[in-house]
Amino acid sequence: MGLLVPSLTNAVFADFLRGVYDAIEDTSLTIQIGNFRYSPSKEEALIRTFLHQRPAGLIVAGVNQTDAARRMLMEAPCPVVQTMETSDQPVDRIIGFSQYASGEMVARHLIDAGYRRPGLLGARMDPRAQARIAGYRSGLQAVGLDDARRMFTTPQPSSVGMGGQLLSDLLAVAPDTDAVFCANDDLAAGALFEAQRRGMRVPDSFGICGFNDLEMSRHMVPPLTSVSTPRYEVGRGAIDLIRAALDPASGETPRRIELDVSMSLRGTTRSVQTERTAP
Amino acid sequence: MGLLVPSLTNAVFADFLRGVYDAIEDTSLTIQIGNFRYSPSKEEALIRTFLHQRPAGLIVAGVNQTDAARRMLMEAPCPVVQTMETSDQPVDRIIGFSQYASGEMVARHLIDAGYRRPGLLGARMDPRAQARIAGYRSGLQAVGLDDARRMFTTPQPSSVGMGGQLLSDLLAVAPDTDAVFCANDDLAAGALFEAQRRGMRVPDSFGICGFNDLEMSRHMVPPLTSVSTPRYEVGRGAIDLIRAALDPASGETPRRIELDVSMSLRGTTRSVQTERTAP
Repeated sequence: MGLLVPSLTNAVFADFLRGVYDAIEDTSLTIQIGNFRYSPSKEEALIRTFLHQRPAGLIVAGVNQTDAARRMLMEAPCPVVQTMETSDQPVDRIIGFSQYASGEMVARHLIDAGYRRPGLLGARMDPRAQARIAGYRSGLQAVGLDDARRMFTTPQPSSVGMGGQLLSDLLAVAPDTDAVFCANDDLAAGALFEAQRRGMRVPDSFGICGFNDLEMSRHMVPPLTSVSTPRYEVGRGAIDLIRAALDPASGETPRRIELDVSMSLRGTTRSVQTERTAP
Repeated sequence: MGLLVPSLTNAVFADFLRGVYDAIEDTSLTIQIGNFRYSPSKEEALIRTFLHQRPAGLIVAGVNQTDAARRMLMEAPCPVVQTMETSDQPVDRIIGFSQYASGEMVARHLIDAGYRRPGLLGARMDPRAQARIAGYRSGLQAVGLDDARRMFTTPQPSSVGMGGQLLSDLLAVAPDTDAVFCANDDLAAGALFEAQRRGMRVPDSFGICGFNDLEMSRHMVPPLTSVSTPRYEVGRGAIDLIRAALDPASGETPRRIELDVSMSLRGTTRSVQTERTAP
């Protein structure tokens, strides 16, 4: 089995891989991993290398392969599963969740919680981060609260330090910002530490919402509001899709699976006002 | 090139892998990764699979392979590099640092900083964690401060939540403990959050030292004292050793490289008393 991921330093893929490995635990499958470091051309080269080794199946991340890579995947003599996103036109099978709808959900939460000048911090800006940020801005636009001055992103890698840096940059330009959606929990942790260093009152004066709900987030002081993504389930499900495709007895099996995403509301955002003001 | 690691969810190996990938950036080498999830028998099976594919080289983690695996590695037709530890009897080449001496260094720092009832938190207890904990206890024994009641370890995986849990367990048994060495930074972050929830005064009444100096650690509030390990350099150096072995022009090259480890002294431990009381 081949497995291609864009990063091995991003905790998001760690949980995905845990799901993959748990799912193969009782099978005869073994996994070999290729890391393309967010480079589409490296991904293409690795797909070529892996297919050459005649794998039982191939799992790839996302839907943004190069044209040549997409062609190889469509003609592959083994089952192929795309992961982490949704698409109407998968190359073969796909399991993931809507990054865009997840971003919209965050916008709705911040608005419901009464924040009126929400901003955004994003790093790396891979296609999935871009999709969730687009969904977030669309959610803000719907209520007239999208403000380009409050959107701070960088193509550099995401990190806790980068979260603090981006928040400082944002506050220098728009000091009255009253909340931020951070496109992942590393950034959100860094933003929370920076807010603490500045003595900002979280969540009353300033709300922080992360994305992915990493293990650390629920243990922070205060614990971090975040979007819980089913990364582990995507990993497990990808293996299930491969196994179903390999098993002639499995009959008609789904080719597209979209999983749910939920918000984990914790101490870095205010309780939603609709709850407080209910009659 | 084959690369076997015990974990892809542990941030320590993420930095190691970053070094590996940076070092192959300009070469024609590609990497395939096998994850044996801390299971020596899975490691043995993966070594068999990888050697079957006739790799240009094989990089493995640690020195605790099974006898059969060790035999395969010694007879491998390609260069083999063991990593992350030191050994007098490497199977071929080795690059790493002394886990034991690193633990001793932490004991010395806590004693110099004036802590007199130091404890320990450890999880997973893989061979490298065991070695650094043994070094720590040896350092405490040398000054008569080793106390088995204050040593709390679990074979369960390490996490931020586990750090908080282990600290609670320790304080329930030995509430007068005045410092902890956490065998990695995840545990240390969890211990710091738990100390904050309990209103403990860090570092004056309670010192916390982590291990590995993850990116997050220097950004926490307060920033975390930790042991900076050359994980990135081990990754880069492992590739250099493979390339030297493959290049007939490289002549006599080192087969064993031991890298230095240093302490990053920050806000979770007191300044060392020798500085304060200097004449």
